[in-house]
Amino acid sequence: MTPTPETELTPEQLSKARLRLWLKLLRASGRIEDEVRRRLRSDLDWTLPRFDVMSVLARQPEGMKMNEISKKLRVSNGNITGIVDKLTEEGLTLRVPVPGDRRAHKVCLTPKGEDVFAEHAAIHEGWINGILGGLNSDDIEGMIRRLDQLDLTLDEGR
Amino acid sequence: MTPTPETELTPEQLSKARLRLWLKLLRASGRIEDEVRRRLRSDLDWTLPRFDVMSVLARQPEGMKMNEISKKLRVSNGNITGIVDKLTEEGLTLRVPVPGDRRAHKVCLTPKGEDVFAEHAAIHEGWINGILGGLNSDDIEGMIRRLDQLDLTLDEGR
Repeated sequence: MTPTPETELTPEQLSKARLRLWLKLLRASGRIEDEVRRRLRSDLDWTLPRFDVMSVLARQPEGMKMNEISKKLRVSNGNITGIVDKLTEEGLTLRVPVPGDRRAHKVCLTPKGEDVFAEHAAIHEGWINGILGGLNSDDIEGMIRRLDQLDLTLDEGR
Repeated sequence: MTPTPETELTPEQLSKARLRLWLKLLRASGRIEDEVRRRLRSDLDWTLPRFDVMSVLARQPEGMKMNEISKKLRVSNGNITGIVDKLTEEGLTLRVPVPGDRRAHKVCLTPKGEDVFAEHAAIHEGWINGILGGLNSDDIEGMIRRLDQLDLTLDEGR
């Protein structure tokens, strides 16, 4: 079995192709995010920032500091504080003191918050499964491999 | 040449794989966007929203209405107005009346705006070419094909 020869592109063509890929990547992720935002609103009466904060907390049962949540989501500290205040009022999150640092606290999901998020997460996974339904396991594997490659390049650039 | 058999995944595994792909897609586009934002700021003393508005206008020489720019960039009308006001002050964009509609106007780049944008766009393409440098033409072609498929699914969902 001979390997498929790589399509020959000039460096200029390759550069244009990479730019085209980036614009398509940006467009696709924007459209999927818009769709998720729309369905959260219409089907669950929820917002994307609330879903995102709970999703980050669900993966850190020991809790996270405000600035850690903020950094993880690339959203300002002030916005995160507003969201966490509201979630805490509703009994979905909880502020816990950090031992040895009187001024610091961590935020975690309450058991009720865990239940609500588990329900939302399952519904969200169903949406994504539908939106990405045109991609089979080979497509997915191929894209994940290239996105991991991209991630590595970005790590090296630091 | 026998076709590669598709990896066998259960529907549950496939759903999890699509979710993982979505999270990686979101992460990659967020990281690239952050990197572009950072370089615009440090290398060109420019902002991403200003770059985005000029980029949209550069592709529409006949001009665009405010709400068209806003829709295209998924940014509120108020934000776009602020950016266009500032660009107009700097002589980079221009408001032109719409014939037959006294209250409407379109925005387009001035010749100076076109020059500035052409310079920025070339530098931006170089950044993207570097950030996506780990992807060869086959990778790019493969990803573009799948992103187009994704776009189609999103169109059908409307």
